[in-house]
Amino acid sequence: MATEQQLDAALETALETARRGHRGANPLVGACILDENGSLIATGYHQGAGSPHAEIDALRRLGRISRERAATLTMVVTLEPCNHTGRTGPCAAAIAQAGLGAVHYGQADDTAASGGADYLSAAGVKVSQAREASAIRELNHRWIRAKEQGRPFITVKTAQSLDGRINAPDGTSQWITSAQSRAHAHALRARVDAIVVGTNTVVHDDPRLNARAADGTALPRQPHRLVMGRRELPGTLALAFDEHWEQVRTREVHELIARASELGYGHLLIEGGATVASAFIAADLADEIYCYQAPVIIGAGDCSVNIAATRTLSDARAYRIDAFSGETLARLGPDIMLHLEPLPDN
Amino acid sequence: MATEQQLDAALETALETARRGHRGANPLVGACILDENGSLIATGYHQGAGSPHAEIDALRRLGRISRERAATLTMVVTLEPCNHTGRTGPCAAAIAQAGLGAVHYGQADDTAASGGADYLSAAGVKVSQAREASAIRELNHRWIRAKEQGRPFITVKTAQSLDGRINAPDGTSQWITSAQSRAHAHALRARVDAIVVGTNTVVHDDPRLNARAADGTALPRQPHRLVMGRRELPGTLALAFDEHWEQVRTREVHELIARASELGYGHLLIEGGATVASAFIAADLADEIYCYQAPVIIGAGDCSVNIAATRTLSDARAYRIDAFSGETLARLGPDIMLHLEPLPDN
Repeated sequence: MATEQQLDAALETALETARRGHRGANPLVGACILDENGSLIATGYHQGAGSPHAEIDALRRLGRISRERAATLTMVVTLEPCNHTGRTGPCAAAIAQAGLGAVHYGQADDTAASGGADYLSAAGVKVSQAREASAIRELNHRWIRAKEQGRPFITVKTAQSLDGRINAPDGTSQWITSAQSRAHAHALRARVDAIVVGTNTVVHDDPRLNARAADGTALPRQPHRLVMGRRELPGTLALAFDEHWEQVRTREVHELIARASELGYGHLLIEGGATVASAFIAADLADEIYCYQAPVIIGAGDCSVNIAATRTLSDARAYRIDAFSGETLARLGPDIMLHLEPLPDN
Repeated sequence: MATEQQLDAALETALETARRGHRGANPLVGACILDENGSLIATGYHQGAGSPHAEIDALRRLGRISRERAATLTMVVTLEPCNHTGRTGPCAAAIAQAGLGAVHYGQADDTAASGGADYLSAAGVKVSQAREASAIRELNHRWIRAKEQGRPFITVKTAQSLDGRINAPDGTSQWITSAQSRAHAHALRARVDAIVVGTNTVVHDDPRLNARAADGTALPRQPHRLVMGRRELPGTLALAFDEHWEQVRTREVHELIARASELGYGHLLIEGGATVASAFIAADLADEIYCYQAPVIIGAGDCSVNIAATRTLSDARAYRIDAFSGETLARLGPDIMLHLEPLPDN
């Protein structure tokens, strides 16, 4: 069996592997499988909601093995294997069924999916937990907070000029975002359960809000649409192309979130306009931000974020370039994209 | 001697090498030396004002060689060698003196330093010019414009939050820029002839405006200081630590530039505040921009750029991430830095 040092190193590797996924309804999780000598023979990670969990991904990469061989293997995973049937089956059962001899995990699962360790022990698998999992908790610190607050994970998208403007004084706002930026934003749409936009955006722009490939065809997974606000909407809307949309007649972010939770959404994408995005940022409900910047200076017009309560600099919201995911800072054709997350609490 | 194909390839290499330098009072220039078989044996580039020109840099890297050997060599350089004694001696004379057999250059020099090709021909050096030099002209398109307009090359620095703010409503503005950002900005100061700031910045912040290393010691080359504006200044100022400063009592960028030219400055750094920086951007006088962004969202306060004349989106100034220099987009500790230049005219 693997030594303690090998388990520690494998947990580091699992953490690195976890970062290849995308945050959302589920946390970032990575897994490794070690052989009887403690050598790494497979890795896996969770790519996002609807995709296999990290443990299943690692088992698949392992391929077919005998029961005798399986009993000599150790699964090392950043998060306690789930004991819960969601969009995918429980991992604890899958690991026991595969006949693995041991499981070593980092962070305990305190959510509704907990109990995996007990299940595995009862099934005769040797289970251990790492003494130190702070880096793993930090990886998912905002996902953990969202779970604690009983709400979806929330991604906010902003698109602005270099000087932070979203339009010119006459309201014109259609700068030429690059094909790469559009493709990035559409891939983001395809990962979320629902997109949230304000009534003003719907009235002014009448967006379709579906997720499209570069050639205009719809991507396989499509987000639902929530329109936030009390303004009356026109009778025909581009986003009403199927039944998966509704207007939530409120200006309160918590009421919007409550309705999204009722609808079972685990991951929301706040697309705008500025009023809606600002409301989520002001309430510290932006678990991550994708900030697209076009290389233009407008010099006047509305700003991308407006928080009326800001008085002094210590009221500012602090973020960091998200070095804990696979995305940090990218050039998307002429544009740039920053992936940010709030600083963890100390 | 080198074939035409080898000369073309060497000019490409010289162009790549040129990008390692910094723009400023002088253009970006790169050079290669080819042996009698057309093989590359040395490269050189101009690091910035006060440093050797690219040709001299390449000759130095070549080391000591015999007259016989020198006569078999070809210098390939992006810009016609200068015939002008500035802070450094004329390159045309240095090449002739080194005894090189041939010179092949890209772009002709139309400035006061022109005449190098004629000088070299008269000295018995075989001189040729590339048929195609559009990429080389694009590399220095804003430097060329500055020369045509008879003014210094102008670098604008902006420092802002993610939402484009430079302060909070109560005027607080001292966000914690990273040590890396400060070091970058001080290296920038050390490359320019003079820093320009507005009177308001001087009155409010009383900056010293010298170029310092991370340990606080002054860098070898120090910029002069120009204070722009008509407001009366206090009697004692931190930036008045030596005689190389003055107040230019105007709000007109062209009057400031005229005075800077009189003083012999070839490269200005506009440090702010927002009013001064915006005036240069509005007048399309920002030849390059360093845009520092701290990962905070303030949500209210003054914007980094304000252009009263902006009405509609087509009034916006278009830039590009400067892929034509060695700097594009950098993470400076928690901050990011964008290096931008205006789009070339079509």
